[in-house]
Amino acid sequence: MAVTLIVNPGSSSKKYALYVDKVLTLSAYVEKAENGGYVFCASVRGVDSLPGIPVSAAEYHESLDTFLSVAVEKKLLAEKVMVTTIALRIVAPGSYFQRHRVVDVEFVRELEAMIGSAPLHIPHVISELQAIQRLLPKVRTVAISDSAFHRTMPDMARQFSIPAETQGRYDLYRFGYHGLSVASVVRRLHAVTGEMPKRAIVCHIGSGVSVTALRSGLSIDTTMGYAPGSGLMMGTRAGDLDTGALLALMQARNLKPLDAQAFLQTQGGLRAIASEADLRLILDRRTKGDKEAILAVDTFVYQIQKAIGSYLVALGGIDQIIFTATASERSPILRSLICVPLEAIGVTLDTDKNEMCLGRDGVISTFTSPIKVVVMKADEAGEILALAEQVGVE
Amino acid sequence: MAVTLIVNPGSSSKKYALYVDKVLTLSAYVEKAENGGYVFCASVRGVDSLPGIPVSAAEYHESLDTFLSVAVEKKLLAEKVMVTTIALRIVAPGSYFQRHRVVDVEFVRELEAMIGSAPLHIPHVISELQAIQRLLPKVRTVAISDSAFHRTMPDMARQFSIPAETQGRYDLYRFGYHGLSVASVVRRLHAVTGEMPKRAIVCHIGSGVSVTALRSGLSIDTTMGYAPGSGLMMGTRAGDLDTGALLALMQARNLKPLDAQAFLQTQGGLRAIASEADLRLILDRRTKGDKEAILAVDTFVYQIQKAIGSYLVALGGIDQIIFTATASERSPILRSLICVPLEAIGVTLDTDKNEMCLGRDGVISTFTSPIKVVVMKADEAGEILALAEQVGVE
Repeated sequence: MAVTLIVNPGSSSKKYALYVDKVLTLSAYVEKAENGGYVFCASVRGVDSLPGIPVSAAEYHESLDTFLSVAVEKKLLAEKVMVTTIALRIVAPGSYFQRHRVVDVEFVRELEAMIGSAPLHIPHVISELQAIQRLLPKVRTVAISDSAFHRTMPDMARQFSIPAETQGRYDLYRFGYHGLSVASVVRRLHAVTGEMPKRAIVCHIGSGVSVTALRSGLSIDTTMGYAPGSGLMMGTRAGDLDTGALLALMQARNLKPLDAQAFLQTQGGLRAIASEADLRLILDRRTKGDKEAILAVDTFVYQIQKAIGSYLVALGGIDQIIFTATASERSPILRSLICVPLEAIGVTLDTDKNEMCLGRDGVISTFTSPIKVVVMKADEAGEILALAEQVGVE
Repeated sequence: MAVTLIVNPGSSSKKYALYVDKVLTLSAYVEKAENGGYVFCASVRGVDSLPGIPVSAAEYHESLDTFLSVAVEKKLLAEKVMVTTIALRIVAPGSYFQRHRVVDVEFVRELEAMIGSAPLHIPHVISELQAIQRLLPKVRTVAISDSAFHRTMPDMARQFSIPAETQGRYDLYRFGYHGLSVASVVRRLHAVTGEMPKRAIVCHIGSGVSVTALRSGLSIDTTMGYAPGSGLMMGTRAGDLDTGALLALMQARNLKPLDAQAFLQTQGGLRAIASEADLRLILDRRTKGDKEAILAVDTFVYQIQKAIGSYLVALGGIDQIIFTATASERSPILRSLICVPLEAIGVTLDTDKNEMCLGRDGVISTFTSPIKVVVMKADEAGEILALAEQVGVE
């Protein structure tokens, strides 16, 4: 019996999934609750939701134990040690992390060295690795890269225009992220739309935001570059800021690189403009005429639209635009704000279809729209499951 | 008699022009010669070229004196002190520099404080101001801003997604540059094409590179942001680099902000990929199959194309694309590399027209191309002349 435990520590929440012989038996997410603590929400076989369990900030690092206990309690697993493979999603810059790998001592050392570049992501991964070491020390653990999908990017998109020697020595390349999310979309695209488009654009809009250009399902460019804070503005991440402005700020405030990085990743984005990072709340404020919310949403939408335009040219046309990740899946208003002005390039949204597509896969453009617009749930867990078996075997 | 002297110190060359009652009488440029020194090339009334005068690196800062001496020698000016107004082009970040101003002690102080952010530009301006002080200390001198044209950019393009308080306190905004070049194009566009397009994109491609989106002739967005090294890759400037990569590099090499800025502005761009900054030479190497040259040109062209795509969406369509500045004006190959893949968005280049348009204004798209493609000489001097009279009067 193959029992795979999937651990997906995100920047603002984490997810677990348990597969027995490739069948999902238990899944859970832990996210911030309104009282400042967290809430642990599990569901059996993806359908039966269990009552939420409050988790204090101090207990947050013990969520894995909670998850395994629920699995045993619900008789989905005879004992915790029945797990045969653990697969972790890894978000970290570096050529080393652009491959899926077996977790060993070297891996942990490489990961710790990268904390400064992904301060929102790596500390959570290390915390989960410690929990695994404590609870299931003998289980084979693999690291599934969130960047590996973008290895097909050509040099003109992957490299910076700084000397090759500098890029090589310090391993500075545009690695890209959200690769598992985009790969999960590509894998199911034919099943949902009946087509495998030659030229597609995937907009991943969650607490992280990126836009990826796909040629026949392979990544040719993506907005996130070296670190997961780059590219478009996000919940708390500033996205690209021109280097002159950053350097002027560092000089004026005497900021060290790590401080600057933390500032850009936690105090930027929607939070910087609208004083909060939750797009749902900001969209609500926008409808009431709140000026900060209007500017935040305008800027957020504008940056996504510009990325779509740039990839339209890179691909020489667009067959499909696919929206994925939480905000994409749940917000018809957001999709409409992005798509309606894209009429000039061949997008015609179907208002009814758009409003009825909530938290499920579907096409939201009109029957005659030259560019098809699709909403798809990101299935990072399914993607990780498929990849976990191959790691170390290839 | 109004005698206006225009001084335009660029990042890698400088230009002078003398207008008597708005008529160009003498113009000159000083640029790098093949022997490592410089050459001073003047022409009378824009047509009669005088023999080039070699200038050593040590004499470079005395070019203004050479220019005025030639004017007197050729009897275009009775005496050097006959100059009534001096107008300097200013490229510097800051809200202060986004307005045209009379040069005074405060101005020089503000300028010196900005050297770190525009190390390729400001030292040359200061050097010219010193020459003016030495040669024509009593003449009214005005500073014509290269950013003022972009004051019409909306907040969503002008602001970064970092806290408003931080942006305000440190004056960190996307100011944009090449404003005089773009304004000179807008001013003459109707004369050249018989139209004033609602939606136009100007590609300024010289040693600096930027793409600007114009709605009814007003700037709504541009690729250069805070400092003139930002946006697209250029001759020696890296353009945008994601902040994570920059901060990782600074940490690894223990670089201070000013060192990092100098590195990105002098060791990046075409020079970083192809070991030299001169696009003409790189285009030659490319045709011989040189791999570095191929990658450099591919990347250079790709970034310009992506900017055009992003503004296509921002404008809701494009009526005209205008190419201006040296490389645009002189290289049909470059224009063809950029435009041919734009067929997908409605650009059809006319091969003959493109090849015949060298160093002059003209339309290079086919008669039926949905998007008109135009080549126009940048006339920064003419623009500065027009603006110089208004400064201090408004």
